[in-house]
Amino acid sequence: MQVAMIGLGRMGANMAQRLQRGGHAVVGYDPSPGAREGLAGMGIGTADSLEALVAALAVPRALWMMVPAGEPVEATIAALQPLLSAGDVLVDGGNSNYLDSQRRAAALQALGIGYLDVGTSGGVWGLAEGYSLMVGGDVEAAARLSPLFEALAPTPTTGWAHVGPSGAGHYAKMIHNGIEYGMMQAYAEGFAILERRQDLIPDLAGLAELWRHGSVVRSWLLDLTAGALKDNPGLEGIAPWVPDSGEGRWTVAEAIALDVPAPVITQSLIERLRSRQDNAYADRLLAAMRGASGGHGVKRG
Amino acid sequence: MQVAMIGLGRMGANMAQRLQRGGHAVVGYDPSPGAREGLAGMGIGTADSLEALVAALAVPRALWMMVPAGEPVEATIAALQPLLSAGDVLVDGGNSNYLDSQRRAAALQALGIGYLDVGTSGGVWGLAEGYSLMVGGDVEAAARLSPLFEALAPTPTTGWAHVGPSGAGHYAKMIHNGIEYGMMQAYAEGFAILERRQDLIPDLAGLAELWRHGSVVRSWLLDLTAGALKDNPGLEGIAPWVPDSGEGRWTVAEAIALDVPAPVITQSLIERLRSRQDNAYADRLLAAMRGASGGHGVKRG
Amino acid sequence: MQVAMIGLGRMGANMAQRLQRGGHAVVGYDPSPGAREGLAGMGIGTADSLEALVAALAVPRALWMMVPAGEPVEATIAALQPLLSAGDVLVDGGNSNYLDSQRRAAALQALGIGYLDVGTSGGVWGLAEGYSLMVGGDVEAAARLSPLFEALAPTPTTGWAHVGPSGAGHYAKMIHNGIEYGMMQAYAEGFAILERRQDLIPDLAGLAELWRHGSVVRSWLLDLTAGALKDNPGLEGIAPWVPDSGEGRWTVAEAIALDVPAPVITQSLIERLRSRQDNAYADRLLAAMRGASGGHGVKRG
Amino acid sequence: MQVAMIGLGRMGANMAQRLQRGGHAVVGYDPSPGAREGLAGMGIGTADSLEALVAALAVPRALWMMVPAGEPVEATIAALQPLLSAGDVLVDGGNSNYLDSQRRAAALQALGIGYLDVGTSGGVWGLAEGYSLMVGGDVEAAARLSPLFEALAPTPTTGWAHVGPSGAGHYAKMIHNGIEYGMMQAYAEGFAILERRQDLIPDLAGLAELWRHGSVVRSWLLDLTAGALKDNPGLEGIAPWVPDSGEGRWTVAEAIALDVPAPVITQSLIERLRSRQDNAYADRLLAAMRGASGGHGVKRG
Repeated sequence: MQVAMIGLGRMGANMAQRLQRGGHAVVGYDPSPGAREGLAGMGIGTADSLEALVAALAVPRALWMMVPAGEPVEATIAALQPLLSAGDVLVDGGNSNYLDSQRRAAALQALGIGYLDVGTSGGVWGLAEGYSLMVGGDVEAAARLSPLFEALAPTPTTGWAHVGPSGAGHYAKMIHNGIEYGMMQAYAEGFAILERRQDLIPDLAGLAELWRHGSVVRSWLLDLTAGALKDNPGLEGIAPWVPDSGEGRWTVAEAIALDVPAPVITQSLIERLRSRQDNAYADRLLAAMRGASGGHGVKRG
Repeated sequence: MQVAMIGLGRMGANMAQRLQRGGHAVVGYDPSPGAREGLAGMGIGTADSLEALVAALAVPRALWMMVPAGEPVEATIAALQPLLSAGDVLVDGGNSNYLDSQRRAAALQALGIGYLDVGTSGGVWGLAEGYSLMVGGDVEAAARLSPLFEALAPTPTTGWAHVGPSGAGHYAKMIHNGIEYGMMQAYAEGFAILERRQDLIPDLAGLAELWRHGSVVRSWLLDLTAGALKDNPGLEGIAPWVPDSGEGRWTVAEAIALDVPAPVITQSLIERLRSRQDNAYADRLLAAMRGASGGHGVKRG
Repeated sequence: MQVAMIGLGRMGANMAQRLQRGGHAVVGYDPSPGAREGLAGMGIGTADSLEALVAALAVPRALWMMVPAGEPVEATIAALQPLLSAGDVLVDGGNSNYLDSQRRAAALQALGIGYLDVGTSGGVWGLAEGYSLMVGGDVEAAARLSPLFEALAPTPTTGWAHVGPSGAGHYAKMIHNGIEYGMMQAYAEGFAILERRQDLIPDLAGLAELWRHGSVVRSWLLDLTAGALKDNPGLEGIAPWVPDSGEGRWTVAEAIALDVPAPVITQSLIERLRSRQDNAYADRLLAAMRGASGGHGVKRG
Repeated sequence: MQVAMIGLGRMGANMAQRLQRGGHAVVGYDPSPGAREGLAGMGIGTADSLEALVAALAVPRALWMMVPAGEPVEATIAALQPLLSAGDVLVDGGNSNYLDSQRRAAALQALGIGYLDVGTSGGVWGLAEGYSLMVGGDVEAAARLSPLFEALAPTPTTGWAHVGPSGAGHYAKMIHNGIEYGMMQAYAEGFAILERRQDLIPDLAGLAELWRHGSVVRSWLLDLTAGALKDNPGLEGIAPWVPDSGEGRWTVAEAIALDVPAPVITQSLIERLRSRQDNAYADRLLAAMRGASGGHGVKRG
């Protein structure tokens, strides 16, 4: 079927390709001419403006946004809305907050425009392996776009699902990412211990590779870890500086709001904050307190 | 090749079968007649005593223990040692502390007896899918037993590796299990949040199944989780009571001994302790302190 | 000076008494007749309505709210605002969110009405020992009400301070309470360990009392703890169920928003959530996963 | 009464002075001539060797060690034992592991020599304010040395107590220090949040000072914090590097051994490990995993 892809960054461009390979007619748009040229170079059609993009689609239209969460999504919807017609369906495939998605869906549905929030997992590997798609929103709109989901997913049947009403897709993705934080931190801690005992186990990349086969901790994240360690066992040239995006924070806030203890996901987020501390005030105060209490000298910094 | 399997519990019996299927001649031993009969019923030979077991093997012998860590392993080795000859190789495939394994290897190697500590991962699924084997100890002894490892592993080449000298196998397994604690806790927290929002996402088993395909959090533990949720979405009849074995504790102690922060693995262990608290004193004291400070009433218990 | 006390719960009634004892002319108001009668029984004047209360005060007026945070404060201000005149000063001495206080101060200051957010610490002991007052808002309004602060504080000079502009007082109180959570949890954990070793140290109340004198961990919270343990060493009849109010949650959210790691304050909050879990889904899922992975039986619940 | 002080570091020299001021006849010993001269300069007697020290005391003797835990205590006892007689009492006032103290007490008691493990809290402030003394061991030996405890404690009656049999004193001190870790971390986190909001609350030292008077978080550690912040509000020149001694680690290990959750004390220890990490491998691995998963660039380090 015909579909517009709005936002041709790494994720959007990859998904446009996978859709095109899956037999769909993709028209791409990005405000950056370079991004549009990149897609055109893959033999996929592009439009120079949102107006041209919408005009290029037969009604009822299907449009898919892969745009950064927050203001960019808000602005894209504001620009699109007057161009769309009742019966069109717009997808937000990014990492929006589920409450925003619920609000946007309600506003567009009042105009007869369908709105689906589709949590999308798979990262840069999705082009080759397929994306796990968590679809939230109107069931009929989801059914109408199912050929797109089938093309994007690893297999037509298992890699996507309608998980609930508006917001459910982004909610599921939020929790997915919270779990991911915890898993990543668990691996990172384990390998950090091992890194100190290379007297005993010299080949960390080899151990990671071994665990990929038959062990209880095998996972896709372990596959990545094994690859990263194989390429660069000493992790040289990489700063110990770990960003976090909104979804970890939202998971922590949601857990607290629901009175659900989530200590490990929460601590995983805090570890990322910690990685970005420079000359941490808390640690300096602890050192000062020790000095004042026990007469211990402090290390000068 | 010929091999003795000592300890015919769930793990030992399964491994004996997989070895036999792999073309090896297994003789099993367990102090329990019922366990021996179970193995015999699968067409695998057994011996009624350690003496008979050792006598049934041609030298140089290969013997594999799947016996609970601690005293049972210690006692088994004490009983076996006078029966063995220089050139024999004994494997501890259980979850022993790596320092014990180093001590035992040194004692047996002084008698010319090889000793391998083989961290074994795969659980009850290993019979069908193969086991991930982390082999520690003498390289030549490991090479001699490699046909056994090849039969037990998911594939002859990728599912086992010699990871280092004596102790390395059990050290690797210890860290493996520490990571497993963290991963399990991350999933458990994520689904516990979701369980409160079944208004939004009614089918947790379906979401777990979806994530198995193409998502960043796909893993073997997620496969198990999806299966458990499919069978019993409400987890009814299961007490919120989580045991822990030694390896999580050893991982925590090792991290601290090495000055490596492992907050998530550590907290995962603490959560298991917490699950087994009954009428927790700490919480009662907090309630009492709140009452004394702010005049807040306490809930009577 | 003349002052109105609005809200005659435990905190408000005590503060009204301490102000009256300090030589101020207090008029109290509470929607509950019983609360008003209670204050009147202490020889302190009351008014039957906010209108009567405001009418009883000479301009420029001073009014102090001790009202639950959230809707009650919002409603009280909405009712008071038409009754007040430029030059009056209204105090919120409760545990409001500092962002609400900033908003309210701006709205009232546009009408010429002063608004102070006064973080108030001291609990039920403040009547006898004085309250620690963290004053936020306009410096001149604070200066005008300083006789009230001097009467409420433990000493006229050390127990209160103007800590910053609007919101600063409640911000300081928020962090104060976050710290309190961490301290309480630290004591609770320490005594919970000791409780298991009464073979070695039989008298926990005695140890708490000892630590009050000269030890590094002496504190007012330890004074309370020692008192609670003396009264009820086994903490019998107290449920292990620990409420939390908004300030701990706000501290956690603020730390994350500022990228400041606050693992111990955060975990202290999570422990309170944990204390209120019943048949925790996360723990049941962990038990189910263990069963599925290792064939371990689960405890039936 | 007559007493020997062995170990004239900061703690030992201060305690010798406080004992002498309390009317006791102190003889000090330290292997360092400078330490002995320091004490002699205060008008307190010293001995040049352990032999001379023991010879200077009338039987039955009282001797007090303030010597680093571990090998120094072990060596001191080994040197003293042949010099002592049945009926003498030796005190370990340092931070020994309680299991070591139990072993040492048993060995010495077999020779008729009393041995008391005395957890000593108060730091450098103990000279002026007195020490909190947690006495473990034989009741009669404790009673005989009570004049010493009375002189060292803040008041003769409240600042020391016999808390249990051998090991109980050091056990109590271990838990005391675990609690101290948690309290210090709670304050450090709170002030670290405040440090980012000096737009709102510019004077952290002033706020700490305010909290000392009437607030719920007032404590001796807050007194120290207020002093440290007053001297150096920006904590300039202090490295964010926090040592830990054995007692925090032992508390964590003991909690786990007893199945008691102690998440906050444990995390406080981990934060100290974290403060001493340089170029943390775990954080670099997390950054590498993010890069491999999402195609996110990593910060070069």
